[in-house]
Amino acid sequence: MVHVTLNFQKMARNTLGKILSITSFGESHGPAVGVVIDGFPAGFQIDEAAMYQQLSRRKPGQSEVTTNRKEEDKPVILSGIFEGITTGSPICIIIENKDQKPADYEKLKNVIRPGHADYTYNQKYGVRDYRGGGRSSARITAGWVVAGALADQFLQKKGIEILAFVDRIYNIQAATIAPENRKQVDKSVVRCPDLKASKEMENAIAEAKSQGDSLGGSITCIIRNCPVGLGEPVFGKLHAKLGKAMLSINAVKGVEFGDGFASTYKKGSENNDVFFKDGEEIHTRSNHSGGMLGGISNGEEIYFKVGFKPASSIAKTQESVDVSGNKIDLNIEGRHDPCVLPRAVPIVEALTAVVLMDLWLENQLSK
Amino acid sequence: MVHVTLNFQKMARNTLGKILSITSFGESHGPAVGVVIDGFPAGFQIDEAAMYQQLSRRKPGQSEVTTNRKEEDKPVILSGIFEGITTGSPICIIIENKDQKPADYEKLKNVIRPGHADYTYNQKYGVRDYRGGGRSSARITAGWVVAGALADQFLQKKGIEILAFVDRIYNIQAATIAPENRKQVDKSVVRCPDLKASKEMENAIAEAKSQGDSLGGSITCIIRNCPVGLGEPVFGKLHAKLGKAMLSINAVKGVEFGDGFASTYKKGSENNDVFFKDGEEIHTRSNHSGGMLGGISNGEEIYFKVGFKPASSIAKTQESVDVSGNKIDLNIEGRHDPCVLPRAVPIVEALTAVVLMDLWLENQLSK
Amino acid sequence: MVHVTLNFQKMARNTLGKILSITSFGESHGPAVGVVIDGFPAGFQIDEAAMYQQLSRRKPGQSEVTTNRKEEDKPVILSGIFEGITTGSPICIIIENKDQKPADYEKLKNVIRPGHADYTYNQKYGVRDYRGGGRSSARITAGWVVAGALADQFLQKKGIEILAFVDRIYNIQAATIAPENRKQVDKSVVRCPDLKASKEMENAIAEAKSQGDSLGGSITCIIRNCPVGLGEPVFGKLHAKLGKAMLSINAVKGVEFGDGFASTYKKGSENNDVFFKDGEEIHTRSNHSGGMLGGISNGEEIYFKVGFKPASSIAKTQESVDVSGNKIDLNIEGRHDPCVLPRAVPIVEALTAVVLMDLWLENQLSK
Amino acid sequence: MVHVTLNFQKMARNTLGKILSITSFGESHGPAVGVVIDGFPAGFQIDEAAMYQQLSRRKPGQSEVTTNRKEEDKPVILSGIFEGITTGSPICIIIENKDQKPADYEKLKNVIRPGHADYTYNQKYGVRDYRGGGRSSARITAGWVVAGALADQFLQKKGIEILAFVDRIYNIQAATIAPENRKQVDKSVVRCPDLKASKEMENAIAEAKSQGDSLGGSITCIIRNCPVGLGEPVFGKLHAKLGKAMLSINAVKGVEFGDGFASTYKKGSENNDVFFKDGEEIHTRSNHSGGMLGGISNGEEIYFKVGFKPASSIAKTQESVDVSGNKIDLNIEGRHDPCVLPRAVPIVEALTAVVLMDLWLENQLSK
Repeated sequence: MVHVTLNFQKMARNTLGKILSITSFGESHGPAVGVVIDGFPAGFQIDEAAMYQQLSRRKPGQSEVTTNRKEEDKPVILSGIFEGITTGSPICIIIENKDQKPADYEKLKNVIRPGHADYTYNQKYGVRDYRGGGRSSARITAGWVVAGALADQFLQKKGIEILAFVDRIYNIQAATIAPENRKQVDKSVVRCPDLKASKEMENAIAEAKSQGDSLGGSITCIIRNCPVGLGEPVFGKLHAKLGKAMLSINAVKGVEFGDGFASTYKKGSENNDVFFKDGEEIHTRSNHSGGMLGGISNGEEIYFKVGFKPASSIAKTQESVDVSGNKIDLNIEGRHDPCVLPRAVPIVEALTAVVLMDLWLENQLSK
Repeated sequence: MVHVTLNFQKMARNTLGKILSITSFGESHGPAVGVVIDGFPAGFQIDEAAMYQQLSRRKPGQSEVTTNRKEEDKPVILSGIFEGITTGSPICIIIENKDQKPADYEKLKNVIRPGHADYTYNQKYGVRDYRGGGRSSARITAGWVVAGALADQFLQKKGIEILAFVDRIYNIQAATIAPENRKQVDKSVVRCPDLKASKEMENAIAEAKSQGDSLGGSITCIIRNCPVGLGEPVFGKLHAKLGKAMLSINAVKGVEFGDGFASTYKKGSENNDVFFKDGEEIHTRSNHSGGMLGGISNGEEIYFKVGFKPASSIAKTQESVDVSGNKIDLNIEGRHDPCVLPRAVPIVEALTAVVLMDLWLENQLSK
Repeated sequence: MVHVTLNFQKMARNTLGKILSITSFGESHGPAVGVVIDGFPAGFQIDEAAMYQQLSRRKPGQSEVTTNRKEEDKPVILSGIFEGITTGSPICIIIENKDQKPADYEKLKNVIRPGHADYTYNQKYGVRDYRGGGRSSARITAGWVVAGALADQFLQKKGIEILAFVDRIYNIQAATIAPENRKQVDKSVVRCPDLKASKEMENAIAEAKSQGDSLGGSITCIIRNCPVGLGEPVFGKLHAKLGKAMLSINAVKGVEFGDGFASTYKKGSENNDVFFKDGEEIHTRSNHSGGMLGGISNGEEIYFKVGFKPASSIAKTQESVDVSGNKIDLNIEGRHDPCVLPRAVPIVEALTAVVLMDLWLENQLSK
Repeated sequence: MVHVTLNFQKMARNTLGKILSITSFGESHGPAVGVVIDGFPAGFQIDEAAMYQQLSRRKPGQSEVTTNRKEEDKPVILSGIFEGITTGSPICIIIENKDQKPADYEKLKNVIRPGHADYTYNQKYGVRDYRGGGRSSARITAGWVVAGALADQFLQKKGIEILAFVDRIYNIQAATIAPENRKQVDKSVVRCPDLKASKEMENAIAEAKSQGDSLGGSITCIIRNCPVGLGEPVFGKLHAKLGKAMLSINAVKGVEFGDGFASTYKKGSENNDVFFKDGEEIHTRSNHSGGMLGGISNGEEIYFKVGFKPASSIAKTQESVDVSGNKIDLNIEGRHDPCVLPRAVPIVEALTAVVLMDLWLENQLSK
């Protein structure tokens, strides 16, 4: 295989969204991570406590199933909100990086970790902030979560509800249970509403941890009360925009909408959702499509599934190379999640909210 | 479930790409479908015959497994190419719609077809070109294919090869065979390089057709010789951009990269690809990640899978409603594909080429 | 002076606008020029005759003061309009190039014309459609004018009126007369509402023509009944967006808003517009600012001035070089406008309408 | 005049640039103003001292001709730079707001100041951070200047030099003197290289200040050693992009390129720049066009002029209204610039650098 490396420059693209846009910045062990939210309508009273609460669901050290790092993730609003109200100006929020232990990472300076972006960042940018993954760290999703929390508050005011939860860890598949709300999801330490499966998942994670290994799985996200009409053919389709957002999350390897890949094993006559008149409204009897047709929401419940690979940072000794290509035996110390999914639930919700609010605004629904 | 309908707006978003962008236009039964390609470098000698050839792979009436419509799809270049050379000006190419039988569709004027975008377009836009699906028809991908064909020619000059093929129809899974080139793919009428499976697929499609039904499946796309470094974190990641493009294709319900959902059933130690020094280069021993890490190509072969639902247009009588909500028995006549996948292969290749060339240009690889 | 020439790439950027966007394509002597209008709301009944009428105001051969070329500029709608109504899908409109006399231009193949883009296109793109200026020809504004005509119809429905007219040709300054409508403007063959000055302008143009020379001047554009609130700080300010659009028009060298440069000769106490309560509304007693403050419309009449250099194509023999740098005596034959301003009036109106409708949509004014 | 006010929405658009983009945030009296710079190539060693120096040229309290506010403008880098080197990740830089005297502004809470954006922000957003102009304050350009300083450093490495200076204050026109560098410009307290005129300007400003009044004027910006080929027809022309950026600067009312409006008073034969062969290169004998043809740089010196209205904040008592429309006599206390131009010089340079670097990157000039 030919193996050409780019030889000049190298940019980053850190803005998501068109009408409502979020611009992400920050590295894992720099002074702060943050976000600029542009296009948020003026006059909206934000709930700082709720934003902080959502961020807390992402933070490390929540439980045994996540990393032991204890970062005090406190969002600081730098602009765009005056006396608790959005002003229509861009909102910048930062979260300082406090619990830094760079010494943990100094050893990794010249190391290329399997499954991580060390090699590709090195080759692409020629220079790399190696401390804790730098820009490629999931730490930066803290900024996404605060942005998503504000979008979520906006959508809630419109009656739209976004709810994500773990439906599978490794090979432990939860029963199909649609939780009522985030409180119910959070009753499970792995954020799986099937409490029996949740227990098994906990055990599986504990076992993987004891083996110095990690587990993946999938998160389901549902959107309730989404109005008909969101999504912009042909290159701004609802699921295409959601899909791009989900695939931007660290460790995500696949995404499917409605019945997804399962629907590709069915016949058309089995998969088509039949329309019928339900009172004054038109609905479908089944909802294989997951609440969208032609890239536009159809008023049924939206649901999609996001697949996360097992975390690449494992305690087990691994074979790898250093930046010069010398073979090494790699022992990653640091503090890492044996399973990222519980903490990824609010990240999925966050980007879903950003995408949905963006489309909502684009559609100018004024009530 | 509350069922709010948008009451004002209604826009469409028809441009894909940043440096190289394609703007799609046209309806199934309007005068023409087409595309404007902006940002294509000047001085590139295009191969019109190869463009036409790629478009022919998409066209209806190729075989028994596709629709019987025989459209003479002839691309007409309106701008941006002078004496066979790109001038750096936007390239507009149209394909006239010729073999129209509007009468086939007049009956469907007030009908809401299951699985199609009739209902959502009606609700979103308030008005709809109902002839053959109008804007929501896969007919418009003809414009994408010509744009993709030019991008493909550009990438080929850089040594990059894009190759898609059917790996499964319904429940018939092909053996893992990586075809050498498109010619090999086209030896199979369903574009599946496992010729034994291909035969079974043909039979399955024939059977579904005889039942007035349709089948879905999945297409694998591989990219060979992609240089290291394509993809722009954090919101322009290689797989996120490819994913969005794939999810823009009609009937696509899911996409996965590398081992995709299968990797979510593995442990970290099983899924991590080990780096090693191979001559002067660094490679990975396995390639579970599908040629990308952190959203950036790593020099290994890129591969991903795209899941297509069974086509929504089936000959079987279906229950549905008209636009007023009255129950109807729907018989779709027209001429439809019992399985869209064989014709979708060049569409997958086209959007892959557009995304890849866009990223290639953004990375300013000058050789 | 160092004189570096770009050595690789070469792209073009042909889309204007964010919510409503127009993508321009075509060359002066290719098959057609055209435009794709994306984001135009669905359900709008277009007036094709009015669109054609506005395009006719741009066409050559209208009078003695313009070129003798007689192109039958007939817009052909390829998509996005169904039974006279916009569908929300992208609208593609082309205007075929008919009255071509390539022989006129063959002689200019290797010539670099002063004031034109021959040299810069050659250097930037390495290849050039030399026929009649190719992409750099003002011919391509025909597409802009049809797009602008539709935007104008939309804005008129909202009560907003855009009106441009010639206020100066060469050194002949018209008295300050605000015309009532386009009909009044068109009473003057040069589109100057001061009919006395108009006559002098005609004579000046005739004289310049007889000398084989050309004249410039300025066009004023006013916008009436613009609602308060259009314009998006800090990088989408109303005048910044209008300014960019105006500077995109061929031959424009300057733009000023409100009193413009004249206001820079005044003191703050003279230039500030005093607010007062006028019935239920707040207005300003004077309007030096030209209807905008902080980049946002303030409800007063918007006005701005656009300066056009004299056309570069003149009949007089000029010294120049060919593409190899050899000195030549250049005689441009063809048929050229001794003064482009009369035909530029609808172009100014067109881009003003596109910018304003884009901002109007972004502001989601629903009535 | 009908006077419709927007009734819903309210967004802001705070990103400038395509390949290199800057996203501005912050208000005059919030915690900080700042900028996110995305797309800056990796591996560039930044000069923090030079960045700080350029910011100091913008800061208040530099001299008698500017405001007495003494803000210690210290840029703090939050991301994107590691050990002094750009990493290709987004660069966030903030400048804290320190010398705040909100009491000065509390009185202005309900006041609508003439010439300012108070009224339009109120109407557009419904809510307003009234402290010192909030988002509409020129304070936010501090973020632009640091972004521009980095772009400037990048361009200097390519040999490109950007130099702005005051050429006129009020009616005092400097002689045409092209300064050699910024050091020479800074020898004049008003940043006018004609030291005789500079002295008169100082006096005029002092006099206006003593009258409680303010003065405007114009700034010339020149770009030396710009390669041929920058600028992207038809909607990314060099002067159109520069024009939009300049019109984004507070108080700017007009912009003209090359001879600008003066060229509109000339005949084509006088205004065309004649090409000739100069050694191995093609140049023009005159440079009326200001270094660009068809929206693309032609290798000659680029120059343009930016007109600033006199500052709206004056000490003189002014008639105005409060937010309810009640007539008031307004006395603006605070500390304001009698003439903003000296401090605007680095702002003009900053946005010029951002635009130029964006185009430079788009053109992929690799040397």
